[in-house]
Amino acid sequence: MSEKKNGSRHIKLTSHPGGHGPKPVPIKWGAASAEERGPVIATLVDASRRNVIGTHSGSYAVYRALAVAAGALSPDHIADLTDTSPTDVIGPNPQWYESDRIISIDPFGAVVRKSFSSFYEKGYDIRPTIAITKAHLCMPELKEGEAAGRVIPDGKILLEGGKCVVSKAAVEPVWFLPAIARRFQIEESDLRRTLFEQTGGMFPELVTRSDLEVFLPPIGGQTVYIFGNPRDLADSKVPLTARVHDECNGSDVFGSDICTCRPYLAHAVEECIRSAQNGGVGVIVYFRKEGRALGEVTKFLVYNARKRQEGGDRAEQYFSRTECVAGVMDVRFQRLMPDVLHWLGISKIHRLISMSNMKYDAIVGSGIEIGERVRIPDELVPLDAQVEIDAKLASGYFTDGEVPDDDELEKPKGRSIEK
Amino acid sequence: MSEKKNGSRHIKLTSHPGGHGPKPVPIKWGAASAEERGPVIATLVDASRRNVIGTHSGSYAVYRALAVAAGALSPDHIADLTDTSPTDVIGPNPQWYESDRIISIDPFGAVVRKSFSSFYEKGYDIRPTIAITKAHLCMPELKEGEAAGRVIPDGKILLEGGKCVVSKAAVEPVWFLPAIARRFQIEESDLRRTLFEQTGGMFPELVTRSDLEVFLPPIGGQTVYIFGNPRDLADSKVPLTARVHDECNGSDVFGSDICTCRPYLAHAVEECIRSAQNGGVGVIVYFRKEGRALGEVTKFLVYNARKRQEGGDRAEQYFSRTECVAGVMDVRFQRLMPDVLHWLGISKIHRLISMSNMKYDAIVGSGIEIGERVRIPDELVPLDAQVEIDAKLASGYFTDGEVPDDDELEKPKGRSIEK
Repeated sequence: MSEKKNGSRHIKLTSHPGGHGPKPVPIKWGAASAEERGPVIATLVDASRRNVIGTHSGSYAVYRALAVAAGALSPDHIADLTDTSPTDVIGPNPQWYESDRIISIDPFGAVVRKSFSSFYEKGYDIRPTIAITKAHLCMPELKEGEAAGRVIPDGKILLEGGKCVVSKAAVEPVWFLPAIARRFQIEESDLRRTLFEQTGGMFPELVTRSDLEVFLPPIGGQTVYIFGNPRDLADSKVPLTARVHDECNGSDVFGSDICTCRPYLAHAVEECIRSAQNGGVGVIVYFRKEGRALGEVTKFLVYNARKRQEGGDRAEQYFSRTECVAGVMDVRFQRLMPDVLHWLGISKIHRLISMSNMKYDAIVGSGIEIGERVRIPDELVPLDAQVEIDAKLASGYFTDGEVPDDDELEKPKGRSIEK
Repeated sequence: MSEKKNGSRHIKLTSHPGGHGPKPVPIKWGAASAEERGPVIATLVDASRRNVIGTHSGSYAVYRALAVAAGALSPDHIADLTDTSPTDVIGPNPQWYESDRIISIDPFGAVVRKSFSSFYEKGYDIRPTIAITKAHLCMPELKEGEAAGRVIPDGKILLEGGKCVVSKAAVEPVWFLPAIARRFQIEESDLRRTLFEQTGGMFPELVTRSDLEVFLPPIGGQTVYIFGNPRDLADSKVPLTARVHDECNGSDVFGSDICTCRPYLAHAVEECIRSAQNGGVGVIVYFRKEGRALGEVTKFLVYNARKRQEGGDRAEQYFSRTECVAGVMDVRFQRLMPDVLHWLGISKIHRLISMSNMKYDAIVGSGIEIGERVRIPDELVPLDAQVEIDAKLASGYFTDGEVPDDDELEKPKGRSIEK
């Protein structure tokens, strides 16, 4: 961004294509090989080598910048990647070489050292956007499930004491803008201008650098949890159980009873364990999209409006309360969600642990076959979450049970705010 | 950001002070009243009225922009805030009127409608940066705790079946840049330039608009959980139990056994319940600072490096593995953390449920008295997390138990990656 010149530092507010110096390494999204595709170079150590807009770590880039400002981190630090390579092999899968299949993450993000070794030799600072490791999960629900006989330790997938063995991957967002625009059926120039203007002026390069087609947005990413052999995900003959879960901190961590998020997630973990134990495989993807990607402040405002409205908290008003506050009922953009499934090589999901029609439509629309859909067991729905479930069923969510009629939808079922 | 002119839209890549039109409403941080302080106006509906850099919802602003680009959300939507006001009164507390006490959140963020009503009458789009609601928490650990007799339902704080009644607040980041620079003892101009450059060129206004002193960064915020009467937080005579918890998705949600995050958090919830039941009050603040604010990709890379290094996963190398990868072992900046405690009016914490010396030093350094410090009970430390605990104790974390010696620190205690 800056350069020493006559002893003083000049700040360039935005860069322009061409300029002086050599052109950045091109990225040919969807090319037939990693070498031809080229690396994503989001380094801040040498601005002239950057070939993207934005930088690594999503929103945590701001904390990194603060660390440099505070003198805690050298701006010249190059990551020492010794011993960090993936514990499990994912791909390469044929989907990695299609230009419009995976457009919001970098399929080569976990294997940059292997794929772009010649660049490392030339001193390029190329960082992984995906990291793969192993973990043991000790969810209290699994201990309960073991005691109740719902899941049975096998010493491999599930250990004694409700400990589950998984492989997991953290994935940063990497957007290929021309394909994002195509997927939303808008002009790329409109996408770029609106992303710039409607964030309050973030990244002028979105507008000035149409030659830079890849954008690392400052948003949360996603985490993949794999139960069983990760290679089996790409084999459509191996029965696959899957859940795509959007973050809900209030329920996922603190067990708030106004929604079904954690109970459904815990149920999915048990389903994935059983699948892996029976010769299949399981996968859960956790997306950082709090409050339908509207954020938690909006979510809490909506809770208050729902519970205080005349007539009480009821299903028929469930979505409209969010629209009043936020202007839109949901901005999770499930159309980008299947990218990670294609990265894993998935072409068929035998059991989808989700009732969402938006997720179902997005997955099927992206070319992945879905067998069975599994709803949340009735006994796992908290009392105060009945409004949410009714509203969702009425709006087209999947069930093999009853869909509530108009009379049901009008009944106030949520607690009032005072209780 | 843009304006219609002769039928075509002109894009301003960055704005400059003065310009044409009237000056924005001034923000006098730390003024003696809300009226004199002035509202934070981060609207995108009318750019000429903005008096800050950045916009609402932290990193979710990017999804909002995408919704506008995709045609799902009108850029002219003004939030309908009917029935959304706080369920509980927080403040005003004396700390709200000090210029350098609360500098990373807006103390008036929950009460914008009440505080700035004259602006609403003039059609200003002013949005809350804090929302306060009520919730019932059903953590499986509380059910266990009830069965084991660790916590006892009283029908008010803790209901039968391990359900806990809380007030909670979602809080967005709002940074007053001059005071942030002072707290880090750096020049404001250096802070602004580094935030701009080291994010890859985010928000040129950081550099061009020194007249705009408030910045809403695109990062995650924090959530406050209150056990008992929120008003008691500001009364130093009422015994207060508190934990400040930094997000760890892998443990907090999925119970990964490599660290103590969820077990310690669940223990803090029980401590807060007991405090509130005994005439005291409890508070837990949850900060979105995944992986020491380095993000989850870095975290997983470090896990692999720790477990594969020669000599195995051991405490003496715990911090240095993070430094190799990230260049710094921690970027959570606990110096900003106490702001939310001051917003709540806290001047004394009787029991701090944390062993972190960084958190302790930051809280005490900000002028809050701390009585007792409560370490995690030994039986809650997972086997694979012993490396972390040993490393932290050796680095100065609080304990009233034993501190491991050099021999202990050299022992490999973590699982190897293959198991």
